[in-house]
Amino acid sequence: MNIIKIALCQMNVVDNKEKNIKKAIQMIKESKKQGADLAVLPEMFNCPYENEKFIEYAEEIENSESLKEIAKLAKEESIHVLAGSIPELEINNLNNSKAIYNTSVFIDNNGKFLGKHRKMHLFDIDVKDKIYFKESDTLSAGCEFTIIKTDFARIGIGICYDIRFLELSRIMALNGAEILIFPGAFNLTTGPAHWETLFKSRALDNQVYTIGVAPALDKDANYNSFGHSIAVNPWGNVIEELDYDEDLRIVKVDLDEIEKIREEIPVLKNRRTDLYEIKEK
Amino acid sequence: MNIIKIALCQMNVVDNKEKNIKKAIQMIKESKKQGADLAVLPEMFNCPYENEKFIEYAEEIENSESLKEIAKLAKEESIHVLAGSIPELEINNLNNSKAIYNTSVFIDNNGKFLGKHRKMHLFDIDVKDKIYFKESDTLSAGCEFTIIKTDFARIGIGICYDIRFLELSRIMALNGAEILIFPGAFNLTTGPAHWETLFKSRALDNQVYTIGVAPALDKDANYNSFGHSIAVNPWGNVIEELDYDEDLRIVKVDLDEIEKIREEIPVLKNRRTDLYEIKEK
Repeated sequence: MNIIKIALCQMNVVDNKEKNIKKAIQMIKESKKQGADLAVLPEMFNCPYENEKFIEYAEEIENSESLKEIAKLAKEESIHVLAGSIPELEINNLNNSKAIYNTSVFIDNNGKFLGKHRKMHLFDIDVKDKIYFKESDTLSAGCEFTIIKTDFARIGIGICYDIRFLELSRIMALNGAEILIFPGAFNLTTGPAHWETLFKSRALDNQVYTIGVAPALDKDANYNSFGHSIAVNPWGNVIEELDYDEDLRIVKVDLDEIEKIREEIPVLKNRRTDLYEIKEK
Repeated sequence: MNIIKIALCQMNVVDNKEKNIKKAIQMIKESKKQGADLAVLPEMFNCPYENEKFIEYAEEIENSESLKEIAKLAKEESIHVLAGSIPELEINNLNNSKAIYNTSVFIDNNGKFLGKHRKMHLFDIDVKDKIYFKESDTLSAGCEFTIIKTDFARIGIGICYDIRFLELSRIMALNGAEILIFPGAFNLTTGPAHWETLFKSRALDNQVYTIGVAPALDKDANYNSFGHSIAVNPWGNVIEELDYDEDLRIVKVDLDEIEKIREEIPVLKNRRTDLYEIKEK
């Protein structure tokens, strides 16, 4: 047995950065109390999911108040934290230009930043009479694949819309990722339609664990998060799925399952790498 | 509206080639009667799913009694037929060696063979205490991607285990396939666990229609087919799914849906082809 306990922190996100940080801290403390090794926060955990708010709330990683407080806590409580995502401000001093990314930072149990993922695929959607949202109006896209090597697992990170692109997950799995974590905020159209299928299929195809953590649903917000934070095992079974509301659940991830399932149905070994290839450019 | 009617012919397969052909013909006639443009037969529609039987039943495509009768009917009834699959014998006259493939032949409504797909990924499974089957003991693997260009659609073909390999479906979709059809015979372990998720995810990821046609369940057979022939639309919704028993259903495939959904959530357009690639070698 090679078990890791991961907390899905499906928090309410409000239009008040301080309150969001306070809530995150409270949930991370509770995660530790319940025995979690790693707490995962949702996408945009410190900021409402709105283009104008991304600009208003954006912070440079090094000077981020949100991340500083979480790093301090991670060290105090000795817990790893995948800090969902925040709107990350990057200032280019050469030409004084600014860019904002949707960025997830992994903080280890010493409070150290082990790495970050900038959302690689920006979410532009226009389902007639249902939902319109264009992230690329405000945000810039990341260009790096992110696998965090901790002392307990290799964790691939994507953010929300990133999960729709099978290439990203496949490449992370082929590069050794055992758990793929996607902080995400699907909405009330795409959530019921696609959220579960996507987490199941990325897990099943790559025989890895997948985890998604979303903000709780706030019906009064401009963007309605579907919630339903989820964990799927390498056999493609949903092992945990939350509802719409704020909630915290611990899932047990058994890394030995990965090898067992890869022996039973050797899909990764049986790939016809003589006929096709998939790779980073 | 750009609608094609496709018949899922979930037939009982028995240990008698003539009876199987007769049943196939009967179901194709019924498909036509119900208005189908294309009838799809299951994997190994003329042969029990057993390695020894593959050898016994194998036929050369050009001399195949099974396919000859179906081609004649296709012309008479003016219906297209994807002839599930048969064990295909290939004799190499140079060294007198033989090989057997699991091969699907597409026959148009003039009785003409438009193309064939040889199963590319052979199914070797060993789930402890549940199921053991090693196709590669008997069969050889195909090496070609297959897209059939008919006058009504571009149809990508895979066979059963092929669906587990996201690369095959992705490459067919990127090459213009609008409908991916997988004659298949999942079993009572992998069927309930994975069949539906795989058809949903290939459809959703590539925003195409997917169709799977299986033999009906025969509890007395050595290999127990899961049945559950299925059709999924490009939004990832199951639009038809059969039960275990012999049955025939017509599904309406609306090709205009593909473009509509690709405009709503432009995942194929939003792929980061600057960062990764997937391609035939």
